Amino acid sequence: MEASILIATLRDSLESNTAHLVYEQLNDIHPVDYAHAISEFPINNLWVFLSALPHPEQAKVFSYLPVDIQVALSTQISRNKLAPIIRQVSPDERADLFNRLSEEQREALLPALAIAEREDLLLLSSHEEGTAGAIMTSDYVMLSAEHNVTQALDVLRREAPDKETIYSAYVVDKERLLVGVVSLKDLILAPVTMRIKELMTHEPISGSVEDSQEDIATLIAKYDLLALPIVDNEKRMVGIVTYDDALDVVAAEATEDIHKTATIGKLDISVKDASIFLLFRKRVFWLVILVFGNIFSGAGIAFYENTIADHIALLFFLPLLIGSSGNAGAQSGTLMVRALATGDIKLRDWGALLAKECLVAGLLGLTMAAAVVGLGWWRGGYDIAVIVAMTMMLVVLAGSLIGLSLPFLLSRFKLDPATASGPLITSIADVAGVVLYFSIATWYLNL
Amino acid sequence: MEASILIATLRDSLESNTAHLVYEQLNDIHPVDYAHAISEFPINNLWVFLSALPHPEQAKVFSYLPVDIQVALSTQISRNKLAPIIRQVSPDERADLFNRLSEEQREALLPALAIAEREDLLLLSSHEEGTAGAIMTSDYVMLSAEHNVTQALDVLRREAPDKETIYSAYVVDKERLLVGVVSLKDLILAPVTMRIKELMTHEPISGSVEDSQEDIATLIAKYDLLALPIVDNEKRMVGIVTYDDALDVVAAEATEDIHKTATIGKLDISVKDASIFLLFRKRVFWLVILVFGNIFSGAGIAFYENTIADHIALLFFLPLLIGSSGNAGAQSGTLMVRALATGDIKLRDWGALLAKECLVAGLLGLTMAAAVVGLGWWRGGYDIAVIVAMTMMLVVLAGSLIGLSLPFLLSRFKLDPATASGPLITSIADVAGVVLYFSIATWYLNL
Repeated sequence: MEASILIATLRDSLESNTAHLVYEQLNDIHPVDYAHAISEFPINNLWVFLSALPHPEQAKVFSYLPVDIQVALSTQISRNKLAPIIRQVSPDERADLFNRLSEEQREALLPALAIAEREDLLLLSSHEEGTAGAIMTSDYVMLSAEHNVTQALDVLRREAPDKETIYSAYVVDKERLLVGVVSLKDLILAPVTMRIKELMTHEPISGSVEDSQEDIATLIAKYDLLALPIVDNEKRMVGIVTYDDALDVVAAEATEDIHKTATIGKLDISVKDASIFLLFRKRVFWLVILVFGNIFSGAGIAFYENTIADHIALLFFLPLLIGSSGNAGAQSGTLMVRALATGDIKLRDWGALLAKECLVAGLLGLTMAAAVVGLGWWRGGYDIAVIVAMTMMLVVLAGSLIGLSLPFLLSRFKLDPATASGPLITSIADVAGVVLYFSIATWYLNL
Repeated sequence: MEASILIATLRDSLESNTAHLVYEQLNDIHPVDYAHAISEFPINNLWVFLSALPHPEQAKVFSYLPVDIQVALSTQISRNKLAPIIRQVSPDERADLFNRLSEEQREALLPALAIAEREDLLLLSSHEEGTAGAIMTSDYVMLSAEHNVTQALDVLRREAPDKETIYSAYVVDKERLLVGVVSLKDLILAPVTMRIKELMTHEPISGSVEDSQEDIATLIAKYDLLALPIVDNEKRMVGIVTYDDALDVVAAEATEDIHKTATIGKLDISVKDASIFLLFRKRVFWLVILVFGNIFSGAGIAFYENTIADHIALLFFLPLLIGSSGNAGAQSGTLMVRALATGDIKLRDWGALLAKECLVAGLLGLTMAAAVVGLGWWRGGYDIAVIVAMTMMLVVLAGSLIGLSLPFLLSRFKLDPATASGPLITSIADVAGVVLYFSIATWYLNL
């Protein structure tokens, strides 16, 4: 069903006082779609839709609501009403929500949970944002190496309703150290009397609670895993991260990296929902920094004031030359930033890439020089044409090499290479462009 | 094991003529890691490592080799030797490889396959690149609605070794129309005599062969699916796309989008492996286009030559003002391009976002004006300070609104909003910056 039709149906049901019946009428609607649709309504209406759901669906739909709406519900709906839902939400979602609440709101929520759930919640929510610990769930199936296949399948059947996945089960020893992993596929193909220790994959690939979410997602993608077991510093199993979390992480990291290409700080919520002041804060820092970078270009121009005053026609070509330098630099910089982020290239590849970039940028410079030489001749005659063509060749080369090298330089000093955004590279390439242009012009015109 | 140690071990084994034994010695190494390591060797050595593997591992390791190495193997190793591997590779990987081979190479490969495999291969490889059809696999399990749970589990057990996943099985009718989906979890929890038609989810979410890979990945992420069934135009089931393919698609699309922010064309292979001419081709188009964009800025400057010649101090502030306009524009443009790509915002949100952007950009402009007014005073006195501050305020606003609107405008005319890259917005904002700066200066200085 189209989202707009669904919303209209919900609106009608509110008007005819049948909101509590609408979910049943919407035969087989997916909880994601229902969650998206009801999140368009004010909190009190949303609560009518949510509370009318059958119990298992309530937690599912709640999980798919945007976090800011979850927070609004947690603060505006009485604890007694909300507690049954919160108890059924998966532990990692619950920890996420908990981290967004104020101290007082947390205090109000905790008594609604059983002691074991409370401890689990406090543990899960103690991990730093951006780490594996912050996205893992404690809802996984543990098996003993001594179980046989029949016993293991019984465990899976019994625990399935409460677990995030039963397709991978983890084998731990008495100290809770992770010793193996077994898939449901292996279990249903194996002879029923086989012992888990004979069936399992030993020393499975695992992540650490402190690993970054990006590294965890990379492992999941590289090894095509359904879930990655997470261990603490003593190698004890503490949770799993599932493939669907990895998908969310990859998309969120891509958004962050794309924003960084334009010097925008990390934005946790949708641009549509972000407040004016939040957007201001995420944007103002680098804009002001770059103003000071551009002062160097201004100073470069001021230095050549006499040449410019004598040959004011030179100014016509200024935007075109420094623009091309910056654009070529943004291209090579962006290529490097992304390749470093995906692990496609390493620090040690700089030399080889530099040699290649010299040839690519040389070709680009020649093409660009050819593209503007006629324009130079038409606007300023032979001398200007020569100056513009020579400068174009050199600024494209200089911009490209600056763009290529800056991400490596930042990486080398343990800074985030993504800081080498298009605007930063453009600012630096602009200075190089101004200086190259007017030095070549001054030199050539005084020959 | 560290990649470098693994490669050293492989090298030693070549020298001591024990390459055919090395995989066994490397207890429990993951096929991905083995594939990465052997791909560092020349093809003839690589073949020694690959051919020495036990049969089921050969196909796994082969699948994880980079596609250019798969192609090199297909062309340099005799068909009789390679055929047993190719036959075991999963259909989607085989179709991928097939699409990279020349007509002759394809002709050589086909006889190695059974007739059914051949038809499947030709069908899979017939789909256009970038569509669901091109990444789907035909290795999925089909069930009949009339089966009971025991029968269904028998089917899964029998077919498991050859299927990409058995965690989702698809229920089709006699016309092969997709009527339901059932998960292995549901199957092992259900009473053994229950019929599939009572257990299955009816009308499951599905994609069409012609959908873009991006849309498919979005569906998989949105509904947290393990696999998405793909249907043809007559709604007949033709394949599945699994979550691991979705992860690869999301990462590849992010790379493409990040490259677009800097006007780089779609690059299918790593920047490390790309040839000089390929990189040149992917970069030159927009660089040349933007040169012509920058001519307008040059013309703007030429138009105000008299004002500039009379007040050459104005030039000092030119890079700083047009730079800020472009940077603010790149920020708001990038925010919109990404939000449109992820579906966070729609075309109809333009009005609301425009109102918000006016306020954000207004605040940014005020801050930036405050940041430069002192510099204006110091370099040029009271008049210049006023002109620079007023211009800064206006160019940040103008740049931001251009950056915000351009992606919507492109979307509106069914063009890719990502074409509104930083450099394109910067070029347009530059023109606005030049014109605003010198008109304000001319007007104010002639008051």
